Amino acid sequence: MKPDQQATAEGALFTDFYQLTMAQLYYREGLHQLPARFDYFFRNYPDYGSHQAGYCLTAGLDWLLNYLERYRFRDEDLAYLRSATDSRGQRLFAEDFLRYLKEVSFEVLTIRAVPEGRVVHAGAPIAVVEGPLLIAQLLETALLNHLNYPTLIATKASRVKQSAQGGVVIDFGMRRGQERGVNAGARAALIGGVDYSSNTGLSCLLGLPPKGTHAHSLVQTFMALGLGELAAFRAYAALYPDDCLLLVDTVDTLASGLPNALIVFEELRRQGHEPIGVRLDSGDRAFLSIQAAKMLDEAGFAQARIVLSGNLEEFAIWQITTQIESDAPAYGLDPQALIRRLSYGVGTQLMVSGGAAALDGVYKLVAVYERGEWRPAIKLTESPAKTINPGNKALWRLYDRRGKATADLVTLLDEDPRELARLTLRHPVEANTYRNLARAELSGLEPLLREVFVQGRRAPPASITELRSRAEADLARLDAGVKRLINPHIYHVSLSERLWGLKQQLIAEARGLRPA
Amino acid sequence: MKPDQQATAEGALFTDFYQLTMAQLYYREGLHQLPARFDYFFRNYPDYGSHQAGYCLTAGLDWLLNYLERYRFRDEDLAYLRSATDSRGQRLFAEDFLRYLKEVSFEVLTIRAVPEGRVVHAGAPIAVVEGPLLIAQLLETALLNHLNYPTLIATKASRVKQSAQGGVVIDFGMRRGQERGVNAGARAALIGGVDYSSNTGLSCLLGLPPKGTHAHSLVQTFMALGLGELAAFRAYAALYPDDCLLLVDTVDTLASGLPNALIVFEELRRQGHEPIGVRLDSGDRAFLSIQAAKMLDEAGFAQARIVLSGNLEEFAIWQITTQIESDAPAYGLDPQALIRRLSYGVGTQLMVSGGAAALDGVYKLVAVYERGEWRPAIKLTESPAKTINPGNKALWRLYDRRGKATADLVTLLDEDPRELARLTLRHPVEANTYRNLARAELSGLEPLLREVFVQGRRAPPASITELRSRAEADLARLDAGVKRLINPHIYHVSLSERLWGLKQQLIAEARGLRPA
Repeated sequence: MKPDQQATAEGALFTDFYQLTMAQLYYREGLHQLPARFDYFFRNYPDYGSHQAGYCLTAGLDWLLNYLERYRFRDEDLAYLRSATDSRGQRLFAEDFLRYLKEVSFEVLTIRAVPEGRVVHAGAPIAVVEGPLLIAQLLETALLNHLNYPTLIATKASRVKQSAQGGVVIDFGMRRGQERGVNAGARAALIGGVDYSSNTGLSCLLGLPPKGTHAHSLVQTFMALGLGELAAFRAYAALYPDDCLLLVDTVDTLASGLPNALIVFEELRRQGHEPIGVRLDSGDRAFLSIQAAKMLDEAGFAQARIVLSGNLEEFAIWQITTQIESDAPAYGLDPQALIRRLSYGVGTQLMVSGGAAALDGVYKLVAVYERGEWRPAIKLTESPAKTINPGNKALWRLYDRRGKATADLVTLLDEDPRELARLTLRHPVEANTYRNLARAELSGLEPLLREVFVQGRRAPPASITELRSRAEADLARLDAGVKRLINPHIYHVSLSERLWGLKQQLIAEARGLRPA
Repeated sequence: MKPDQQATAEGALFTDFYQLTMAQLYYREGLHQLPARFDYFFRNYPDYGSHQAGYCLTAGLDWLLNYLERYRFRDEDLAYLRSATDSRGQRLFAEDFLRYLKEVSFEVLTIRAVPEGRVVHAGAPIAVVEGPLLIAQLLETALLNHLNYPTLIATKASRVKQSAQGGVVIDFGMRRGQERGVNAGARAALIGGVDYSSNTGLSCLLGLPPKGTHAHSLVQTFMALGLGELAAFRAYAALYPDDCLLLVDTVDTLASGLPNALIVFEELRRQGHEPIGVRLDSGDRAFLSIQAAKMLDEAGFAQARIVLSGNLEEFAIWQITTQIESDAPAYGLDPQALIRRLSYGVGTQLMVSGGAAALDGVYKLVAVYERGEWRPAIKLTESPAKTINPGNKALWRLYDRRGKATADLVTLLDEDPRELARLTLRHPVEANTYRNLARAELSGLEPLLREVFVQGRRAPPASITELRSRAEADLARLDAGVKRLINPHIYHVSLSERLWGLKQQLIAEARGLRPA
């Protein structure tokens, strides 16, 4: 896309068309100023096939807020809408509505949201938007677009980092992600726990050093010129004597790549430099890691790192470390020491969230304000689990005596569970499933939704380092069972007694039955 | 992201860092001007789990060429690279190299490629880049990023359109795709056969009308205000009397949505307007389509369309039409007539290519030019299927007497199979698998790679309509067996006898064995 095209495709028209047809309807019906509230939440954790996430990590809010601040219909956008026609060729959008759109900005919205880098759970409101109906509705597509994908990737990154057992993880995903979306994906991966990215521009923006050394093509070039792999390695070491990490699988990892790397490493050391290590991009990376470690150790390079790459994700890494744990001792190696010297380049499967390529986050109307009061909205569905939780809500995290998060509690906005001696935690759907909790059993109750956008002013952005620390702190307060890569404990997102009562009342009313 | 940040994250630094470290090495070694050739190809068709694509459709080239034309290192980019340091804190990039980068442009590259909207197959070169080694290597990340994802989505779109049996398909995928990548995805979907998109800005760019009517929230708003679903429908019909398509599943499709829609449709007709139809977004959409058709027919709206949406993809659509074929007659409906009045809104599963979220396209060095001749490059791997086809190549499509594509033939660039009376089609890996074909058995041989970028000038862009026609023409010339959604015939991509011979020779040399 060209820059002038980006102004069209990434500005106010970056939206589903029905937001605009609905907007005109609200305008025409005089409902455009009606105060309304919408919740953003996801219904299901990413399900990677046989295994499901037990939590998600929020990401994407910062760039959403950037988008909000700049949001304006340009004259070109309005001219395009002026040209839209219905099935009879008549104009769809009237001039008074377009004049109104020209003045629309998101400054009139108030957004409360769980900040980036926090653990969140299915069914809990992650963002709550309040403002005039027309404008709050117009935000839907951009909000979902900016939050769903980054949250998905921060979650995947967190799982990959967990399976890496402390090893450095580097994002290599630019080439197979969704075009410009890879920038948002890399940022989310870095929030979620990935240490570095090969994405140079994005690393520049975030103030992180980008990572990367060389590709197979470097070795291929030297081979095609008759110079060979060793010459390629020597050229690399000469140029980057203190950053020498060699990709050793272009010809034959054990017979050529590793022996040639060792020759170069010894030459480097004689010149007063220490090599960084080797990268293995194919083959049985558990077996090859063991062989590489043995060869490096025997040559006196016990500090050299081993970087693994090539279609890795959390389970491939888990399989590799498991195999090392079982096989390394037979080669006289300490498996834990070997695992500690591993780093991981993770590309495609990270950037597209392999196995679960989308988060099902939705944006639902929960209340409108009329005749002096907020009227909760509800939408019945065939599946009770999909019935929304109505009204204006707050989200609380309850910590037990160990300081671990034990449940999230969704309450009405005017409830403060900190003032209650006893809490009832209602299952969102099942009437007979609830838990009573004495306040004294809890070490803390934390309100999770913060005002992040008020009267056109956004909360200040946090650095990637801060966001990553936030995520680490939240993960430390999450029970190990919830963090399991397979069959995690289902974390409870409960409703307060009052919210539960309101929901039942609205369901009954919607069915045309008043409760007895 | 903010606009000034886009200049950083979407410009020359939109690349994997190793392209830059390798570039400096080529510069330092005096190899930067070495003429080189790289092939872009994919190894495997998208595999959606139990079912695999039998072909792909190319997309993404137009925006790649836009990127190429604008590619320049800005002073800010070079300043950032100037700040990059190695493990000892020393500068990674020397000043002379940065001065060189400042002058780099892609104008010196020549790119031959299969144009957008063409059927292509695994293993065949889809783009061939020729130019100075350093610059051709620098293109890798951007090329893969711009071609892999759109080709994946054009392919998915083609499958969805096929299963829709001629029904209109609309892209609804903005909210769950990968942030800004959804624009590239929507464009690819439109190339691949999707008829319209809800993406307003992208539709504006492409000169297509965006599509969309209203969301559940419209009905919810009217309900929360005590006005009800019927009032919402009436308001919609009053504003859009000639574009009236109503979403009927907010409350209860059969008991509320459809009866209310029929009331409004009758009112519309009395005012001289014909409704467009209804949309079903949840539940058993085969059963509900039958019920909706019956109700619409009985009320005299046999022309009204039925739009289905909600987590659809090619198999969900197939299941729906299959169920209609089996069940509709029991309700006195002609199943084919019912299927013809269906349209489909396809969102998440289209935009993330549900089941296969990435295409494995790669960019591999195939030849360098030295001492007056092109030297083919090869990379051995453990898997023979992954060994690249070396050298400078052409790609031909062979059409049989019926005019159907029967195989793609990869030859050396200086071969012209049109001049041969007899062709040998070699399997790329298996020595004893080949086919002999008399020229007279073929109705045509079409060269597929076209010069699309020469001396900084790009081939003119084609309209979406042209691209879609191209795709349709190619699909019409593809055997039905190759287009099957499940277990497709494997289309042959063969090597010419000369290319096969070269490959064997290079493999033997790389193994240190001259052929006997």
